[in-house]
Amino acid sequence: MYVLVVYDVGEKRVAKTLKFLRTYLNWIQNSVLEGELTESQILKVKNGLNKIINPYEDSVIIFSSREKRWLSKNIIGREKNPIDNFV
Amino acid sequence: MYVLVVYDVGEKRVAKTLKFLRTYLNWIQNSVLEGELTESQILKVKNGLNKIINPYEDSVIIFSSREKRWLSKNIIGREKNPIDNFV
Repeated sequence: MYVLVVYDVGEKRVAKTLKFLRTYLNWIQNSVLEGELTESQILKVKNGLNKIINPYEDSVIIFSSREKRWLSKNIIGREKNPIDNFV
Repeated sequence: MYVLVVYDVGEKRVAKTLKFLRTYLNWIQNSVLEGELTESQILKVKNGLNKIINPYEDSVIIFSSREKRWLSKNIIGREKNPIDNFV
């Protein structure tokens, strides 16, 4: 599945959250990562996040789409990460 | 169309970018908004952003999906904006 993750976590947990998410996904913008994951990988991401974040302060939204072609992507301005390809 | 916008703009342009995007979309998390827009509204959003942002420094990504049901949304942790409903 195509997965898009946006996170808003306390400063103390930013580095750990980003490092963890990078093991599964490609960074595309500040606090935004995307990638192609299986259902079981998505579950691992959710479980991992639950161990890192503070559920009373932090928020992570995981968007997923069965087919990547169902979601189109337009960039206005600068492409922050031209190295990682859109999956 | 269901539209999701994530922005990463210079500090000086954050307030203006957010204010502009809020006229079309609902804020759901830091630097993330979503909503249901027509093709012509999406064009207005793109044109408006081009007037606000610095294309060499800032980046705004607009994701769109013809059917909102094609994209599922999971929140880990706190729901930052429980007032706006998911469109």
